[in-house]
Amino acid sequence: MFHSYCSATYRCYDEKADFNKKALGIAVGLTVGSWTDLPEAKKADMERHLGKVISVDVHEPDSSSGETVSERYADIRIAYPDLNFSRDIPALLVTVFGKLSMDGRIKLIDLSFSEEFLSGFQGPKFGLEGVRKLLGVPDRPLLMSIFKSVIGHDLPTLREQFYLQALGGVDLIKDDEILFENPLTPLEKRVEVCMEAAAQAEQETGQKLLYAVNLTGPTFSLLDQARKAIQAGANALLFNVLAYGFDVLNELSRHPDIKVPIMAHPAMAGALYPSAYHGISANVLLGKLMRLAGADIVLFPSPYGSVVMPREENMAIKQALLTENKADYMFNLQNGERTIKENTHSSSHQALSLRSSFPVPSAGIHPGLVPLILKDFGNQTIVNAGGGIHGHPMGTVAGGHAFRQAIDGCLAGQSLKTYALQHPELNAAIEAWGLRES
Amino acid sequence: MFHSYCSATYRCYDEKADFNKKALGIAVGLTVGSWTDLPEAKKADMERHLGKVISVDVHEPDSSSGETVSERYADIRIAYPDLNFSRDIPALLVTVFGKLSMDGRIKLIDLSFSEEFLSGFQGPKFGLEGVRKLLGVPDRPLLMSIFKSVIGHDLPTLREQFYLQALGGVDLIKDDEILFENPLTPLEKRVEVCMEAAAQAEQETGQKLLYAVNLTGPTFSLLDQARKAIQAGANALLFNVLAYGFDVLNELSRHPDIKVPIMAHPAMAGALYPSAYHGISANVLLGKLMRLAGADIVLFPSPYGSVVMPREENMAIKQALLTENKADYMFNLQNGERTIKENTHSSSHQALSLRSSFPVPSAGIHPGLVPLILKDFGNQTIVNAGGGIHGHPMGTVAGGHAFRQAIDGCLAGQSLKTYALQHPELNAAIEAWGLRES
Repeated sequence: MFHSYCSATYRCYDEKADFNKKALGIAVGLTVGSWTDLPEAKKADMERHLGKVISVDVHEPDSSSGETVSERYADIRIAYPDLNFSRDIPALLVTVFGKLSMDGRIKLIDLSFSEEFLSGFQGPKFGLEGVRKLLGVPDRPLLMSIFKSVIGHDLPTLREQFYLQALGGVDLIKDDEILFENPLTPLEKRVEVCMEAAAQAEQETGQKLLYAVNLTGPTFSLLDQARKAIQAGANALLFNVLAYGFDVLNELSRHPDIKVPIMAHPAMAGALYPSAYHGISANVLLGKLMRLAGADIVLFPSPYGSVVMPREENMAIKQALLTENKADYMFNLQNGERTIKENTHSSSHQALSLRSSFPVPSAGIHPGLVPLILKDFGNQTIVNAGGGIHGHPMGTVAGGHAFRQAIDGCLAGQSLKTYALQHPELNAAIEAWGLRES
Repeated sequence: MFHSYCSATYRCYDEKADFNKKALGIAVGLTVGSWTDLPEAKKADMERHLGKVISVDVHEPDSSSGETVSERYADIRIAYPDLNFSRDIPALLVTVFGKLSMDGRIKLIDLSFSEEFLSGFQGPKFGLEGVRKLLGVPDRPLLMSIFKSVIGHDLPTLREQFYLQALGGVDLIKDDEILFENPLTPLEKRVEVCMEAAAQAEQETGQKLLYAVNLTGPTFSLLDQARKAIQAGANALLFNVLAYGFDVLNELSRHPDIKVPIMAHPAMAGALYPSAYHGISANVLLGKLMRLAGADIVLFPSPYGSVVMPREENMAIKQALLTENKADYMFNLQNGERTIKENTHSSSHQALSLRSSFPVPSAGIHPGLVPLILKDFGNQTIVNAGGGIHGHPMGTVAGGHAFRQAIDGCLAGQSLKTYALQHPELNAAIEAWGLRES
């Protein structure tokens, strides 16, 4: 008889624990509760609800190797029967990391899903390709800008900021994530004036533009708020996913009335991913779960700018958002034979059914960093800047131009130092903030 | 002109940062964005949106004191104008810790609220007193038990477990937090058979009982699920708050159709509170925000049992859940004079308008720990046990009795060692698991 499982991988730090015993304790404790005490007849019944230890990789500290700091840890992978939880992210997270999160130094570092569990999710409604289609930009890296400042400003000021950003040739403009419903720039009015500014700019640039308006307020009213925004003309939504929960994103993204892409902001993510010993790693938090829950575009701290995340973690997020290989998301366990079937013939050639999410490495980005971003992310990324556009020595419009020039220069295979000679805006940006080509 | 503010306190670790500069960067960066560049006329306009540095307490490491590990950190308190965010927890959290959570080693260690912000919250609908009233138990510590195992069991088995727990004299029984909607024990059926078992037991014990059924599934259907459970007879709800978000708890608790107490489970909390360097401290996460969002009963890891939290953190949670002193929650800033008015005459004698939440230190509790629990929490607590009831050498019913005897013994001011001489169930429990009276 075949049962399907989702799997969770944990990194546990402990100086002397018996990690195999710990793994077994997790597999039993978070599923059927007890096993060895069960009568044999009952065991036959309960087997299909029992968690299974898939692997325990112990890393002993090696003092002889000259490593200065080295701690003993183990990566433990457990498979959890789908039978035990419903097809939603809260149920999965509570099962695999609810109680366990409080049990010493343990971090959730990966999740894989069964075909059955995945089938409960629609994923991004537009995804990377859908966003490109809306903008009519089939291949090049996109450019996004963020308002310079929003709090305390009125509609005309916001409109003016929006217009200047749009004139600079950006593809997307996002609200600041700290702009909530307020009397100066209420949601529907804000959408109206900004979309009007977008139309005006389009006449000059010939370019389409997505405006991601911040969806905020009480959870049970978010759908209505989103409908209002869309009715007013919004063509994208910004959402602080982690302040509301992954399931709210999932509820919004799968709803037929939400006919625009959703951009996930990483606000609060730093409460969860940076510790080595606790929390949830970035590839799960800002990668797999965001895509599963339906984020079309995902922002995260970059390894280049002001809010720094290690490059390796960034690449893991990128992989989680972009991979088309089903094996990266899937977990297969042939229960009877206890044979792990992942990464083998059957699944490795299959395409993941989820659309991909646009990765947006963010914070502290200026034109001189574009070569690094494109080196790491290729064309499938959105270059995102705030201060790097508004703080341009020649002004906001020039700031947008400088970024577009940096992108064009890279795509043309040129050194930006050379390319800047013919492009004064890019040149000014590089003079102001420098250039890093490797 | 008077404006109101909420405040956030952070602990930042940094070997050499200028913490005063950092504090100013936070106060400006997370509100108006920039300040020194603003024209004077604009400053007058924007002042009311500007964050304010309230205090910066730098702790320099003192190598001469013989402390073995000592790191440089600062506690920074910033006041944020209410004008900048809406009256909901996601807006407050995104404002004070959205981007900032990703900015190095920084932990959110406290929050205080303006009168205006607090007025947007109803808090617990029943609270500690309301729960006591429902049960008809005015003063003694309550006793709660958890099902031994739930996954893979059918309705008759669950009913039997429930009945035995109820016979033991517990006041509350909670679902396991990992029990989701499933074909063996679906929500409404589960409620029906358990409430029937409760009624049956009540005929023997003469005791009322609350059954907290686990509210699960997609976020936008939770209200309907709760209505169904209540319709079927549920007299309490269990909710995995952190897997859904504080605002969902708030939406549920303030809804008029939710006519039963809500019990908040701490599942996933360990992803957020244990690190010294990142996340949100337990008093905020499992204390203030749970109460603000309307949890009538709050579970958290105890310092006594298997999932250990330092006692100091436990006492901070207790204080946050029980305090009646408005000053513990309030932040007052007389803007013009920059005088902090907290903890002074005006507010310290005022009662907090929020009902208190019942604190439930949990995990690994056995009867021999009751003296410690009551010493720390007094009578205003719920003693909560799973294995400590079901694993009793004389069985589940005796397990309940042993706990009630331990509570009675403590209330009678007796040493449990002596009290156990006349109470065989308590005696057996102490022989099995030991006794800690201090």
